[in-house]
Amino acid sequence: MSNIKASIITIGDELLIGQTIDTNSAWIAQRLNELGIDVLRRVAVGDNRNDIIDALDAELASSSIVLITGGLGPTADDITKPLLNEYFGGTMRIHEPTKEHVRELFTKRNRPFLERNLKQAELPDNCIVLFNQMGTAPGMWFEKDNKVIISMPGVPFEMVSIMENEALDRIKERFITGSIIHRSVITAGEGESFIADKIQDLEEALPVYIKLAYLPGAGMVKLRLTAKGANKEKLITELDYWQNRFAERLSYIMVSLEDIPMEQIIGDWMKTHHATIGLAESCTGGNIAHHFTQVMGASTYFCGSIVCYQVPVKVNVLGVNEQTIDQYGSVSEQTATEMAKGALNVFHSNYSFAITGLLSLGGESDKKPVGTVWMAVANKDRVVTKEFHFHYDRLRNKEMATSMAMLMIWKFITNRI
Amino acid sequence: MSNIKASIITIGDELLIGQTIDTNSAWIAQRLNELGIDVLRRVAVGDNRNDIIDALDAELASSSIVLITGGLGPTADDITKPLLNEYFGGTMRIHEPTKEHVRELFTKRNRPFLERNLKQAELPDNCIVLFNQMGTAPGMWFEKDNKVIISMPGVPFEMVSIMENEALDRIKERFITGSIIHRSVITAGEGESFIADKIQDLEEALPVYIKLAYLPGAGMVKLRLTAKGANKEKLITELDYWQNRFAERLSYIMVSLEDIPMEQIIGDWMKTHHATIGLAESCTGGNIAHHFTQVMGASTYFCGSIVCYQVPVKVNVLGVNEQTIDQYGSVSEQTATEMAKGALNVFHSNYSFAITGLLSLGGESDKKPVGTVWMAVANKDRVVTKEFHFHYDRLRNKEMATSMAMLMIWKFITNRI
Repeated sequence: MSNIKASIITIGDELLIGQTIDTNSAWIAQRLNELGIDVLRRVAVGDNRNDIIDALDAELASSSIVLITGGLGPTADDITKPLLNEYFGGTMRIHEPTKEHVRELFTKRNRPFLERNLKQAELPDNCIVLFNQMGTAPGMWFEKDNKVIISMPGVPFEMVSIMENEALDRIKERFITGSIIHRSVITAGEGESFIADKIQDLEEALPVYIKLAYLPGAGMVKLRLTAKGANKEKLITELDYWQNRFAERLSYIMVSLEDIPMEQIIGDWMKTHHATIGLAESCTGGNIAHHFTQVMGASTYFCGSIVCYQVPVKVNVLGVNEQTIDQYGSVSEQTATEMAKGALNVFHSNYSFAITGLLSLGGESDKKPVGTVWMAVANKDRVVTKEFHFHYDRLRNKEMATSMAMLMIWKFITNRI
Repeated sequence: MSNIKASIITIGDELLIGQTIDTNSAWIAQRLNELGIDVLRRVAVGDNRNDIIDALDAELASSSIVLITGGLGPTADDITKPLLNEYFGGTMRIHEPTKEHVRELFTKRNRPFLERNLKQAELPDNCIVLFNQMGTAPGMWFEKDNKVIISMPGVPFEMVSIMENEALDRIKERFITGSIIHRSVITAGEGESFIADKIQDLEEALPVYIKLAYLPGAGMVKLRLTAKGANKEKLITELDYWQNRFAERLSYIMVSLEDIPMEQIIGDWMKTHHATIGLAESCTGGNIAHHFTQVMGASTYFCGSIVCYQVPVKVNVLGVNEQTIDQYGSVSEQTATEMAKGALNVFHSNYSFAITGLLSLGGESDKKPVGTVWMAVANKDRVVTKEFHFHYDRLRNKEMATSMAMLMIWKFITNRI
């Protein structure tokens, strides 16, 4: 069975000069994928008439659905709407419901309704207007030669709103598709090559309609199994079988069968065990707490974090002994241990985690080499410490340290360390 | 003057199913842009032989430089290298320096050197090998019909390392280019349409070789002026003139003439004024601290943050009065004010900022509507509070609140509130 093919075109000079990172394409691709639609290509072009037309021509030649984001704002550098109107042979007319919606939005926000805002309500008369409840520029659904072209604004939450409320159901109705099923096996602590060697025979035994992909991340490798076919029930049964076989083989490094972030895996564990956790963060500067609080409902188990970026905060708030810092340095096993114990006291939590390190030059004056990080994880009975060395730049080291922190917490609570 | 054209091809099924957000393209586009090279298109294709060849054919037809990322890992789902070898008519041979480098890396990391790792050192004999000091897969530089094709691994920091140490200088040498200069005017507090109306006459008066673009973000609009031409000095003079004219016109909402993040603008101010700041974060869960500590050298002015996600932390660590919380709720002007004052005490800082809110359902039990946030910014002489309402989902509300927090701090320290 061959899947319906789609292409994504993103329009905007800001994408080509690298001012904006394209998150829309990944989101759209995920949603289409869930419907069993394959994204064939993603193309980014500038705010340039000929380049947009070339991209449309090329993608319409190979895909049944072309999704376009960007180029619909109210300012002069947006040229997409008149171009699409012309491309599909329509006439621009004021769309009354859109006009009312735009006027209402401006009233609600106490802004004057300007002449140029009226332009947002001018739409080709040969498209289905996709209502944008999050903003002023609606989406547009064109059909041509049995193919569908959907144009949406580039602002991510506006695009998401139009897709979820207007476009996805229409796509489902319009294109009958088979099923595509994904299963994951999330591992931590071993590299891609090592895992590939461990599972080579299983990988070779996979039926042709099940594909295996390696998705390496910081300290982790995600294995993704994908099956395509018409019989959804059969696919699920088979894929579950293979997922289990891979999971068994990799049990000693297996973290989860679900592709969810580590902070959520820890959060679920905390909820199940009615446990709480508090942090003491120096070098990660609040990033671990930020990750914990991305999970809805984290306040039931996540107490908080003492971000002790300067030394006195470690002493005054966490109760780290000044002598410890003088003797061993603020980046040391001893300081990390006292920070973790301090966090248990401050938060009255079941678990605590502490981190102190030197992620780049120009930070705290310490004699440790750049990249040195000490972590400690504790409960009332025990403390486990570990030293890390990160070799990249400041921002990457911070993300790496955050990932490693999550892993260390997970290993501690599941008694693997 | 017409600029050199480049295309970026990203390879990998993970991009088409949306598992990975492509940050490489934006980074590469920025670097090429700085050299005066225009990125014409960015294309993402899957790990599929024909799609890769089609993309190569299409991009080589219109661009002088084609940069490829992805598809070079050691596992079976990577097909790019043999394909490029064939495409450019080479022969695969073991490249001794790469083999030694890979072996060394494995020794350093205490991992066994496996047969499949040797594959990383097998390279087409008709390319210039671009050394990868961050990983095992080197980059490759091919030339064909006076065009250059550069293939690099998809792991972002490996790609960055190869570009910075190997590829960019070669690109500079190989292609003589004119200049492209950017200038920014960063504003806060007004929308895109409003600004467009304010500066319409200036925009219309711009010479043809200077382009203006609007880049809206959370609560901010960046204006970017871009000039292209052969005479760099002349361009700079002219662009500075126009930048000043736009900045003057928008002075009352102007934040910066440099396109740097708000946390760095605040940081620079703090350094200049020998001031310090500490935070008390509830709903942003450490994200504001995380942003502050992204800036190198932040420890000279950023003390830390009390991430008080649960109520007792507000009381025990920040000294918020329990009665205040009982009477007004934890999301209230009164609680925010006491949190800010508490942070001044805890950190002994010149400035403090506090935030408490309800970013999504399922959080703290409070009678306020979802999206309500109170912020307070203080020094020893005064406290300014402000109520916000955010209407999006949890993660977006958190980012919006963080942006608004930065703006509020900046306005307070520059005496605009």
